Amino acid sequence: MNPVKVGICGLGTVGSGTFNVLARNRESIQARVGADIVVAQIGARRDNPACDTGDVPVARDIFEVVRNPEIDIVVELIGGTTVARDLVLEAIANGKHVVTANKALIAEYGNEIFAAAQEQGVSVNFEAAVAGGIPIIKALREGLAANQVEWLAGIINGTGNFILTEMREKGRDFADVLAEAQALGYAEADPTFDVEGIDAAHKLVILASIAFGIPLQFDKVYTEGITRISTEDVNYAEELGYRIKHLGIARCDDEGIELRVHPTLIPEKRLIANVNGVMNAILVKADAVGPTLYYGPGAGSEPTASSVVADVVDVARTLTAEPKHRVPYLAFHQDTLSDHPVKAIDEIQTAYYLRMSALDKPGVLSQIAQILSDAGISIEALIQKQPPEDADHVPVILLTNVTREKALMSAVEQIQSLDSIDDEVVRIRVESLAG
Amino acid sequence: MNPVKVGICGLGTVGSGTFNVLARNRESIQARVGADIVVAQIGARRDNPACDTGDVPVARDIFEVVRNPEIDIVVELIGGTTVARDLVLEAIANGKHVVTANKALIAEYGNEIFAAAQEQGVSVNFEAAVAGGIPIIKALREGLAANQVEWLAGIINGTGNFILTEMREKGRDFADVLAEAQALGYAEADPTFDVEGIDAAHKLVILASIAFGIPLQFDKVYTEGITRISTEDVNYAEELGYRIKHLGIARCDDEGIELRVHPTLIPEKRLIANVNGVMNAILVKADAVGPTLYYGPGAGSEPTASSVVADVVDVARTLTAEPKHRVPYLAFHQDTLSDHPVKAIDEIQTAYYLRMSALDKPGVLSQIAQILSDAGISIEALIQKQPPEDADHVPVILLTNVTREKALMSAVEQIQSLDSIDDEVVRIRVESLAG
Repeated sequence: MNPVKVGICGLGTVGSGTFNVLARNRESIQARVGADIVVAQIGARRDNPACDTGDVPVARDIFEVVRNPEIDIVVELIGGTTVARDLVLEAIANGKHVVTANKALIAEYGNEIFAAAQEQGVSVNFEAAVAGGIPIIKALREGLAANQVEWLAGIINGTGNFILTEMREKGRDFADVLAEAQALGYAEADPTFDVEGIDAAHKLVILASIAFGIPLQFDKVYTEGITRISTEDVNYAEELGYRIKHLGIARCDDEGIELRVHPTLIPEKRLIANVNGVMNAILVKADAVGPTLYYGPGAGSEPTASSVVADVVDVARTLTAEPKHRVPYLAFHQDTLSDHPVKAIDEIQTAYYLRMSALDKPGVLSQIAQILSDAGISIEALIQKQPPEDADHVPVILLTNVTREKALMSAVEQIQSLDSIDDEVVRIRVESLAG
Repeated sequence: MNPVKVGICGLGTVGSGTFNVLARNRESIQARVGADIVVAQIGARRDNPACDTGDVPVARDIFEVVRNPEIDIVVELIGGTTVARDLVLEAIANGKHVVTANKALIAEYGNEIFAAAQEQGVSVNFEAAVAGGIPIIKALREGLAANQVEWLAGIINGTGNFILTEMREKGRDFADVLAEAQALGYAEADPTFDVEGIDAAHKLVILASIAFGIPLQFDKVYTEGITRISTEDVNYAEELGYRIKHLGIARCDDEGIELRVHPTLIPEKRLIANVNGVMNAILVKADAVGPTLYYGPGAGSEPTASSVVADVVDVARTLTAEPKHRVPYLAFHQDTLSDHPVKAIDEIQTAYYLRMSALDKPGVLSQIAQILSDAGISIEALIQKQPPEDADHVPVILLTNVTREKALMSAVEQIQSLDSIDDEVVRIRVESLAG
């Protein structure tokens, strides 16, 4: 199978992430696609120390990439709507498939771009344009294809969500948190796009179009930022059982379509109310499935690259595979499935919750601690309650560190064999699930 | 464009949902696919009052469907692993594409089925087999195709999650909640598959295979149910800052692969710890994107049908569209985009949070209430604080019912013009986001 040739235009944060992901996961991506994906050329005004482009040719004139007859897929990662628009339209005119992460370009010039692409018979994919690494475009265009979408509401600007989260959790005021976000690199020096909701409006317009089947209409979005949210309102909202989130909301009913970005009080018990920091999430309400939610990082080098490369894989699959075998049954082609062994349960490593009923007398706890310590297991947390009146046994609850199951089980057996321990020791595994 | 012809085998809960969704959303699905999708035959031992099959021929021998030369896609919704296996293998042998919601069949016989399908050049799709309406298979096979998946953890059995949620929220014990779940229809008369983790193990095996690119290995899953979880442990976990969830966990490292289903303590601040009731969620940690989470209903007639029909749409798109135009840019084909109008912001309907600074004297609150009442707006919640010492104004905070923005804004203007109101009235929209 001939390799699929990709040209990357722009080698900033997302461009270098895209190059690095394609290089690092080249083998597994090939097993998924059934063909190799090769970066044949990069167009970038300057190098980026975050990525070693090796012997891939780098053109200083990015337009060389869209004119390179070798290239199948042009990946536009330069941002902005002037040069990027020219670049994408020329790529399309030259019969290239296009992948872009450019929300402003799609929101403002998507109708023109898609018309040109339709005429040329090429695809334009833009998963990375909305909510970074969350595959929300694919979910809406394909995963929910059975449905009429009724509404969607998204936390689709990580900077804004970081600011509101800090205001609520730490009682800090808007200006203070914004300054920190800028120092951390979450917010631009000019934060207007983020805090005034323009970035979210770009993304909302794209989501609404693919949810409802309407042309892109950026000029029709009502947009209100978070600059006037005070800690006072954050606190009153909490008192009423709500959180303030900066949402993009799109709704469709018989009267028409709502497209609006604004701060919103939402009940604190909703899952989306608990999406904090720079994370993004989109809640979609559709007629057949009901509510579904998609959560993940909305920005960053490799999270965004994850979506860019998924789009490249999508196009590569249509270019190389039989349509009927576009996506392998188990994601990877049958002849590439691995025989990596499945571990026995006693080889896994996890932390443990233990509850036991111990005789209420001196020395028992130290016996238990000794057994665990001899097995190399440390105690991370402990609850020991006073015995109920007239009872001679007390409940002892422990959380251990992460350890090998075999070691834990053998220690538990020893604990159970102590005269001072009544009944079986209750064991439940503990996982931090830290991202 | 010729219509794509579907045969539905099985007309139970999911079968009737599939028929109904295809019928109700036929027009919008056609705008997505570019071709009509027609149910050409149903195979069902008996009719189902939940669905009016009209003049669609119904065969009492379901094998008639897989032998019907007209049919392109066989949808297997009979469940079980004996007849279903024969049915699917015969459909494949006859060159039909297959869509199934049958987790047991895929987990236990998937390797055999995919080998046969590969040989015949047909697709087998099974989105509905895991987590009902959540498009998690698509996310893993396509949306995260750039990534090496490191681990995933899922609440993939709604019955189990309902039981654990009730135990925590209401202090009820396992047996009591199980009996209610059976009465509500969430749990089967024989609840073994749900509460012993077998159903979750089926789903986990499928998720792990497409995450890591390994054959299906149902016999290698470690499975522990929730029958021994006591309210005592639920409460101690909470005291330690954790929730107990029944998780399917798959992890891949250099040593091997972990496949395990068991009750697990997870930190209560994790989003997945807050997935309650019958809802499902899968948290995936992958190298490029980091953590992403997918949430939605894991069972039910139309939620499951949503995934079945998405699979049908997927196959139909490969059968009818040019590969390069498989998925339209904006989800619907360009010539079907609708001119449904976008509403002006003053036409939207939403609830409102209002905060004002009111003179601390009798009658002010009644003036405010009167203005709102005259505008047809009711007050759903109210906070009035005592004035700070020496201050003559008090903060008044209101939540209104859902009203038209125009009416609200005009009422707010009147309130602002009162002598007793200082400064501007702060207005923030409120959305319940109820699913």
